[in-house]
Amino acid sequence: MSRHTLTEREAIALLERLFGRAPMSRRIAVAIGDDAAVLRSGRSSLLWTIDVSVENVHFKRGWLGFADVGYRAFQAALSDLAAMGARPLGALSSLVVSADVGRRELLALGRGQAEAAAELGCPIIGGNISRGSEISVTTAALGEAKRPVLRRGARPGDELWLVGDVGLARAGMLLLSKATARHRRLRAYEARAPTGRRDAGHICIQHWRRPRALISEGARLVGRATAIIDVSDGLAGDASRLADASEVRVLVDEVRLRSALQPELIAVCSALKIDPLDVALEGGEDYALLACGPSRRRPRSARCIGSVLSGSGAFLKREADRRLRRLGAGFDHLA
Amino acid sequence: MSRHTLTEREAIALLERLFGRAPMSRRIAVAIGDDAAVLRSGRSSLLWTIDVSVENVHFKRGWLGFADVGYRAFQAALSDLAAMGARPLGALSSLVVSADVGRRELLALGRGQAEAAAELGCPIIGGNISRGSEISVTTAALGEAKRPVLRRGARPGDELWLVGDVGLARAGMLLLSKATARHRRLRAYEARAPTGRRDAGHICIQHWRRPRALISEGARLVGRATAIIDVSDGLAGDASRLADASEVRVLVDEVRLRSALQPELIAVCSALKIDPLDVALEGGEDYALLACGPSRRRPRSARCIGSVLSGSGAFLKREADRRLRRLGAGFDHLA
Repeated sequence: MSRHTLTEREAIALLERLFGRAPMSRRIAVAIGDDAAVLRSGRSSLLWTIDVSVENVHFKRGWLGFADVGYRAFQAALSDLAAMGARPLGALSSLVVSADVGRRELLALGRGQAEAAAELGCPIIGGNISRGSEISVTTAALGEAKRPVLRRGARPGDELWLVGDVGLARAGMLLLSKATARHRRLRAYEARAPTGRRDAGHICIQHWRRPRALISEGARLVGRATAIIDVSDGLAGDASRLADASEVRVLVDEVRLRSALQPELIAVCSALKIDPLDVALEGGEDYALLACGPSRRRPRSARCIGSVLSGSGAFLKREADRRLRRLGAGFDHLA
Repeated sequence: MSRHTLTEREAIALLERLFGRAPMSRRIAVAIGDDAAVLRSGRSSLLWTIDVSVENVHFKRGWLGFADVGYRAFQAALSDLAAMGARPLGALSSLVVSADVGRRELLALGRGQAEAAAELGCPIIGGNISRGSEISVTTAALGEAKRPVLRRGARPGDELWLVGDVGLARAGMLLLSKATARHRRLRAYEARAPTGRRDAGHICIQHWRRPRALISEGARLVGRATAIIDVSDGLAGDASRLADASEVRVLVDEVRLRSALQPELIAVCSALKIDPLDVALEGGEDYALLACGPSRRRPRSARCIGSVLSGSGAFLKREADRRLRRLGAGFDHLA
């Protein structure tokens, strides 16, 4: 689901209004509202999702190569399967390409998709190609899980877990979006920085260009997590969605979240004079997983960044005064 | 698959080049190259397809309403399931809408999709909405069949069957695409025509705006047809693709095909002074089914329009001199 111009919450409301009244068959366990639709299939479930990456909405051509466009779009789509704890079965690709995209560029784009598909063990088994006025890459992905993990199972008393990183991709996009001025500041910063921090900008940009769907990590949460969502729109908004779906209150602890941030994010934010916490809360495109579960079941790969209480909404427990700040979709310090 | 700018043959070749080298799992029975991908699932097969309808490529806004855009895109996608003899399980919808599309238009578009979904018994169970510079409607559809019918099973000795109509939608589009001049000719014709022919133009336009995926008809071909393809790109091109996939020669008999044409097509072509045979051969968007099978198994709904021989390629057996004219994709009298 896309952050751009429609929040996911708005899109879901609209989709439910558009399609929610259709009679559903007994085969359909979950329709609109989770990361993927769930169809019953014998003893296991099929997880099914679709995602689109549109030029000048989700990316600009100058910010990445054609192979990156394909790679990124594929990983973004597969992240919805990771968020259900599913193993991928296969994907379909629907490409719209503008007339200025030649055969070589199209092959590079497909190479990027194929590379991501190979990494995730998810072969692309069909698709189509059409002309249009801008590039758009639509990916439908099908996965399988014995016990898919939904957004709606979190319980008061659970911990809030973060699997993967947040903020790096957004910091990379900030560098790309106003490249000249920000890169100058970054270069000045890096010149003074200790050796280990000198490629922080490059690392953040690579996180945006080449994100990774956390398929194995998601599968390892099955039987441990009570709820999972992928951080595609930003930690703040996605925590709020998870709280809504599970009908609980989700508390993000600022101290714990800050301690989970990567040094490269902190370095770039320091150079750009912005608070890495804001970038971590509002930046989505690392495709981390946000999960809930009991403390005793937390896997090694998950860091505890908060807790689940009874109530509603998502909140940040601030370090300075321990007061709560409401988190929600559409509240973006960086917009 | 789209006829526009890339023929389906070219698109398949490109997709195979892009994705064909990926290692496939045992679950995947058919990947790129048929109407839908085939995944093994217990005792039956899952059929899976994706299709896109792009503004100014597949339709122009003046030619149809927003509800028609949604309806048409959905039926076009589901036609790929009809062509496998599959029953639909559900669909995902990915909408890209431009900034000038308001909430009311978007709801109308969704209403058209929902209407088609209800008619075909295929609930829309997920999707997303994004901004873009033009409207595009992508539909992924999943179906099920105990014994899916592929393109590649036709055998010498089979008959060539047509289920549904060809040419009407193309004639409707011809009326819409140069509306003023052509409508004037049509109105003059209709004024002289017998009462039953006076709405021929309207009927053809409705065939283009509101095509129907032949799901039930496709399912009835299972156990009867040896091969099926849907006529999405034009009878000539699709007959040629079926011949290639089955490694046979497909012969379309001009006399039989002409006798299968609808009176409304003949009326409109007469008004426009074009040969309805050309429109029937090159026009695709009625989503008829072209199938092969032994004479004794032909269902009532199928008309025999030719035969299958050993050899290769698709040919028209001409009425005038009984000579063969090669049929193929990309050969379009009306382009």
